[in-house]
Amino acid sequence: MNSNNPSATPHKADKATVRRHNLSLVLTTVHDEGEATRAGVASRVGLTRAAVSSLVDQLLTDGFLTEWGKTFSGQAGRPGTVLKVARTGPAGLGVEINIDYITVCVVDLAGTDRVRLVERRDNRGAAPAAVLSQAARIAARAIESAAEQELRPVAAELALPGLVSGGAVRQAPNLGWNRVAVEGLFAQALTALRPTHRALPVSADNEANLAAMAELWFGGCAGGDGEPRVSSFIYLTGEIGIGGALVLNGQLLRGAHGFAGEIGHVVVEPDGPECRCGARGCLEQYAGQAALLRTAGLDETAGAAGVAELESRAGAGDRAALGALEDAGRRLGRVLSGAVNLIDPDAVMLGGVFRGFMPWLAPAADQELTARVVSGLWTPGNGRLRASSSSGDAARGAAARGVREVLADPAAYAERVTG
Amino acid sequence: MNSNNPSATPHKADKATVRRHNLSLVLTTVHDEGEATRAGVASRVGLTRAAVSSLVDQLLTDGFLTEWGKTFSGQAGRPGTVLKVARTGPAGLGVEINIDYITVCVVDLAGTDRVRLVERRDNRGAAPAAVLSQAARIAARAIESAAEQELRPVAAELALPGLVSGGAVRQAPNLGWNRVAVEGLFAQALTALRPTHRALPVSADNEANLAAMAELWFGGCAGGDGEPRVSSFIYLTGEIGIGGALVLNGQLLRGAHGFAGEIGHVVVEPDGPECRCGARGCLEQYAGQAALLRTAGLDETAGAAGVAELESRAGAGDRAALGALEDAGRRLGRVLSGAVNLIDPDAVMLGGVFRGFMPWLAPAADQELTARVVSGLWTPGNGRLRASSSSGDAARGAAARGVREVLADPAAYAERVTG
Repeated sequence: MNSNNPSATPHKADKATVRRHNLSLVLTTVHDEGEATRAGVASRVGLTRAAVSSLVDQLLTDGFLTEWGKTFSGQAGRPGTVLKVARTGPAGLGVEINIDYITVCVVDLAGTDRVRLVERRDNRGAAPAAVLSQAARIAARAIESAAEQELRPVAAELALPGLVSGGAVRQAPNLGWNRVAVEGLFAQALTALRPTHRALPVSADNEANLAAMAELWFGGCAGGDGEPRVSSFIYLTGEIGIGGALVLNGQLLRGAHGFAGEIGHVVVEPDGPECRCGARGCLEQYAGQAALLRTAGLDETAGAAGVAELESRAGAGDRAALGALEDAGRRLGRVLSGAVNLIDPDAVMLGGVFRGFMPWLAPAADQELTARVVSGLWTPGNGRLRASSSSGDAARGAAARGVREVLADPAAYAERVTG
Repeated sequence: MNSNNPSATPHKADKATVRRHNLSLVLTTVHDEGEATRAGVASRVGLTRAAVSSLVDQLLTDGFLTEWGKTFSGQAGRPGTVLKVARTGPAGLGVEINIDYITVCVVDLAGTDRVRLVERRDNRGAAPAAVLSQAARIAARAIESAAEQELRPVAAELALPGLVSGGAVRQAPNLGWNRVAVEGLFAQALTALRPTHRALPVSADNEANLAAMAELWFGGCAGGDGEPRVSSFIYLTGEIGIGGALVLNGQLLRGAHGFAGEIGHVVVEPDGPECRCGARGCLEQYAGQAALLRTAGLDETAGAAGVAELESRAGAGDRAALGALEDAGRRLGRVLSGAVNLIDPDAVMLGGVFRGFMPWLAPAADQELTARVVSGLWTPGNGRLRASSSSGDAARGAAARGVREVLADPAAYAERVTG
């Protein structure tokens, strides 16, 4: 119990509430273990074998669990039936709308990416409603593909590169969007395509937040080589903009209005170049994709091809390329040292274009972190500054969030599964 | 239930655990309301009147609650007996060891400051063990005074200006302390004075963290004039060093190792003057007390007298004083804009010497915040940047934490009260 907040003391629990919690507890245990027997679940969660059997029966009937034959694991007692979470039934739908692509994916209860559609397109030129309509068309196709695999999305989540709160994008500077009611527009467009999709709840979040959750749930929060699993980290994604997210103890730090994590707009040079956000000298103007390409003497609008060229030049020892990456690494390191002094995370994960640039960015960043983090816990090569496991997968994080909701309260979704 | 973390699903609750939770629920409700009847508590927490009566009886017997006559509040039903938390019995002991003073205070269950002893002394010259022994002597006198008021501290908490973790100060640059096992040394010194104090559990935390909790629990988190209560804020205390704490939804953000909130060591000028922490150009070197006095042309070691002189000069329109405060405000504003972009709090509270300097610091800081906070929620004079309600009271925050532990689980303390 947290002694700082006595008013968080739980209220009286009634029997139905307890059963509902226990359904989630059993389902989550099987999910987290990958597979488990009834006896294994009982010993893990501290409920009686009889109680677990009754809960498992309901989860089987409602289609959240499946039986997979007997286990002969050598443990005491009779062999048990192996339980796994169902690979059909409830699923999550994720829709990432980024500056130069739209990605839609569907994940099943186990978190596996089962359907993925990607469309490269420049979304900066189009009206928000048109972009959201296009996203809905792609989503409708993904839902069709999912149905062929007997998967039914129970929630859709949009991932967007900007400040997202209350179902709307408040500001997405690199898309040029201001106060766009994305949840409503997307739901409307999807329902117009298929009236039966009216029931699908739609939510929205910042893309870096969702990419960070994908990193936490599926990615390299295990550092490899026996390093401990990381649950508190700052996640940075280098794209046309720089997105950021803060994860503490496995939870997103959202802030009071949902706008936390905007590390791309931390000031680096008070009188620096103007940023799309309206301020001057933001980190994005020094370490974003365009700034990196420009400083290295490349076309700052060259996109993925420019990034590949910069990587190749740096690999070949090109001085302008190395200088640009070192400078960006130093500035990233300074901003990150401030963020680490404020937040005290276990690690910083660099995704997006930063991932490929690590060999040349990281040494300068490490040097700044070592010099400036007051705790003394940041030293070069100790693994706290690391590349994210993928270049970032906000679509999968978005899809997985729907699945997490099912795991947290399967009873709330039972009707939709069996009905 | 938080859908991000299904593994947080509660385990099976048994009857004894539920009763223990409900004891806390009832006690906390009376505490938060100031006074309440049994019927009022029942309707507030959703338990039956009979259940509440049984819980209240136990809390009365164990000395956590007292009865204060009848209420005739005009509500339906018979007049009820007014309940309040006991003003005798379990209490919290707070011990703030700062650079130029030691403060010890005892607060009762209601959070009232009942004993306070302050000793001005320069702690920089002495060995840590000697300072902690002196703190123990003051604490022993405070416990004696408390006993005369029938108050018995059930927990002691030390507040220290540095990085505190695992019962030790890792680093307190302005005290010159490194790796000092403060909890053990203090407990030892206190037990040496009075063997009966051996049972008193001792803990330790950063002083800005505890001052922030005092602000949250007792201070001006209500902004006055009907402004909403603030539960997410950055707390800055300007002392010889600059301390910082982050409070989100009423909880301290501690970070992965307990070192979060070190806003004084966020870099302002990469090649600036060397800081006591070993890095260069930290905020403390531009907006700390010594820097303020120096920039204004005063003796940087003049302490409280120097601060008073600077206030008086600024009030009289002295240009050097105004320039020093404006410059510090601008730099504070830049660092704070980065922190706000990262954390997205409701407010920033300035304590310590900053409190008195607000009229001259705040405009420049507000200007930077307005220009640089990407959410657009920070505009001059909208009350988000504000002075803390006191100049900071880490000792009271430390003492109150022991009381919060009692409120969160009175059953754990019942023996000590009645025994």
